[in-house]
Amino acid sequence: MRAGDLTTPALLADAGVLDHNVAAMSAQRPGPSLRPHVKAFKCTALAARLAAVGHTGFCCATVREVEGMAAAGLGDDLLLANEVLDTRRLGALVASGAARVTVAVDSPETIAAAVAGGIREVLVDVDVGMPRCGCDPADAGRLADDARAVGLSVRGVMGYEGHLMHDPKADRRTAAVADAMAILTTAHADVGGDVVSGGGTGSWDCNHLVTELQAGSYVLMDGSYARLGLPFREGLVLLTTAVSVSARGWTALDGGLKALAMDSGNPAVVGDGDDEVLFCSDEHTTVTGSFTVGERVGLRPAHIDPTIAKHDTLHLVDDVSAGADAEVLESWPVDLRGW
Amino acid sequence: MRAGDLTTPALLADAGVLDHNVAAMSAQRPGPSLRPHVKAFKCTALAARLAAVGHTGFCCATVREVEGMAAAGLGDDLLLANEVLDTRRLGALVASGAARVTVAVDSPETIAAAVAGGIREVLVDVDVGMPRCGCDPADAGRLADDARAVGLSVRGVMGYEGHLMHDPKADRRTAAVADAMAILTTAHADVGGDVVSGGGTGSWDCNHLVTELQAGSYVLMDGSYARLGLPFREGLVLLTTAVSVSARGWTALDGGLKALAMDSGNPAVVGDGDDEVLFCSDEHTTVTGSFTVGERVGLRPAHIDPTIAKHDTLHLVDDVSAGADAEVLESWPVDLRGW
Repeated sequence: MRAGDLTTPALLADAGVLDHNVAAMSAQRPGPSLRPHVKAFKCTALAARLAAVGHTGFCCATVREVEGMAAAGLGDDLLLANEVLDTRRLGALVASGAARVTVAVDSPETIAAAVAGGIREVLVDVDVGMPRCGCDPADAGRLADDARAVGLSVRGVMGYEGHLMHDPKADRRTAAVADAMAILTTAHADVGGDVVSGGGTGSWDCNHLVTELQAGSYVLMDGSYARLGLPFREGLVLLTTAVSVSARGWTALDGGLKALAMDSGNPAVVGDGDDEVLFCSDEHTTVTGSFTVGERVGLRPAHIDPTIAKHDTLHLVDDVSAGADAEVLESWPVDLRGW
Repeated sequence: MRAGDLTTPALLADAGVLDHNVAAMSAQRPGPSLRPHVKAFKCTALAARLAAVGHTGFCCATVREVEGMAAAGLGDDLLLANEVLDTRRLGALVASGAARVTVAVDSPETIAAAVAGGIREVLVDVDVGMPRCGCDPADAGRLADDARAVGLSVRGVMGYEGHLMHDPKADRRTAAVADAMAILTTAHADVGGDVVSGGGTGSWDCNHLVTELQAGSYVLMDGSYARLGLPFREGLVLLTTAVSVSARGWTALDGGLKALAMDSGNPAVVGDGDDEVLFCSDEHTTVTGSFTVGERVGLRPAHIDPTIAKHDTLHLVDDVSAGADAEVLESWPVDLRGW
C-alpha cells in the first residue's frame, strides 16, 4: 500500500530515520543505560523495536502507559516517572506479576499512596531546578528512610532537568546540566540505591551522571530539538490533502490543530520550497503557495509527543519525503493513549 | 459516583450550564434554524440532546463525524461543511440509506469527487473573506451550474466568516459579519437553492442572513469566546489531581498539554483565587499557589473543541465548580474522534 491510499490526515514515520536515530542513541547509550520514554510515541510496536536492540527497561508518564506496556509483554522494568496518588490499578498490576513496576515518590503522601496500592519499589524524585515535581534535595534522604520504614524498596533517585533541554548553546547546556546533576549526586548519596535516572534527548551527550537516560523524542525528533544540532533526524510527518486552492494565494490542507500539537508552534511544510504555514484551524492548515487540489502535502509537527497522542495509528513508511508515493511498511496502533 | 472517584485527568461538563446554553440558543435559533456543529464536542450523546430540542440537522467537519452521527441514528440531515476528495466512505453511507448527506464543494475537483463517490447533494462553499476554503464568489454560479450538469442537487450556499468570530467589539463584529454575508447573498442569488449556511457562536446574534447557523462551541463555550460577553457560560473543566507541591511556591497537577488544547493559550485555574498557570508540559500543569497533595483542582481550557478531541470520555456532572464533590450524572463516549 502507498501512503496516498491512506485517509488523510495520516501520521507517517520514516523507517530509515527511525533506524538511524535508534542506532545513533544505542551506540552511545546501549542496553539498560537508556530507559526510553514511551510518552514520546505511546506505541508498543515502536517500543518493541527498542526492546529488540536491548533497551528492555522503559519510562512511562501515565498509569495507562504502564498497563499497556505490561499487556504488550514489555513489562520487565517499567518506571512510572511521575507522582501518582491513585495507585489502585498499578497495585493490581504488581499483584498480577505481569510487570515490574517502580514509581516516583516525592512526598509523604505519595509514599503512603504507594504502600496503600501495593507498590513495592520506588525512586525518590528530586527537584533539580525545573518547577514541576520532585522533593527538596535536602529532604531526599529522609523520604528514602520513610519509604524503607514502611516496607518499600528504594531503588535510587530520579531528577529531570527538562528546563535545560532546549538551550541551543551546547556549552551552556552542558554546564547547566552538570549543575543540576550535582544536586542529584548529593541527593543520591543520601538516598542510596543503584539507580540514578534522568536526562532526555536534549542532554543525551552531556548528562554523564545518570545510570539511565530517559530519552524518548529522539526516535522521531521534535522540531524544537532539531534546532540543537543533535545527530537525530526528524522522521514524523502529517500527510494531508490539499482540499481547496485559492487564486488569492493560499491552499487549505485537511489536517489542522486536532491532528497536530500546537504547544510549540505551527508545523512546517515538508519540501525545499518557501511555502509557509499561515495558521491552523481545527481541521485545516492554511499554507502559502499554490498546490493542486487533491495533492498530498506533508507537515512536520513542532512537537511529536502530543502530536502522536492525537492519532490512533502511526504508519511506518519507507521514505516520508516521498509523500503519496511512500510505501506503507507497517501500521502501528497508538495504543498507550489516555489515562 | 462523585467526580473525585474518576481517574484524573478527567473531562467534566456542567449539566446546568449545558442546559442553559442550549436553551438560550434555541430561543433565538429554534429547530432547523440552528445546525449545530458536532466538531465542537465530537459526542453523539450530546448531539442527541440537541436533536431532542429540535435541532435535527447537524454540521460535521470530518467524514468520521458523518459516519458516527449516522450510526447513532442522527443522520436526518448531515452537512459535511468541508471539502473532501476521498468520497468513498461518504458514498457508501449515502448508498446505505443510513443518512442524508450534503457535502461542500468549491472547485471542479471537489464536484468530480462528489460524483465519483456517489454523493447526491452539495452546497457551494463561498470564500467570504477567511483564508481557508470556499470558491471565489464570482465563480459560485458557474460551479453550481457545473454541479447540476453532472447530476448533483445543489441545495444552496455556505460561507463561513470564522475570521470575524472573536472580535470583542460587538458593533465592529456586526458590521464585518454583515459585509461578509453581503458577499454570500450575491453568490446565493447566482447559485439558488433554499439553504444559506454559515455563522457560528461568535456571530449568533449578528448574522441575520443565514437560514441555518453553524454554531457548536456555545454548548460549553471557549475561554476566547467567553470574552465576547455572550449569554453562554463556560461549562467544561479538566479535573486534575495535585501530585506534587513545592515549598518554592508551585504545585504540579496531573493534566497537561496532552489533555488540554494549547492553540489558544494556557488554561485557567477554576476558582476565585489568584492562582495562575505557569506552564503546561505533556502530563502536568504547573500552577502558582499551594494546594494539598491529592487535592482535586479544575482547569478551564482555552479552546474546547480540540480539548474534547483529546479525551475518550466526557463526564456530565451536576456542578462543575464542586470539583471532587460533583456528582457524575452520565459518562459520554467522545465517539466522533479521528478521521
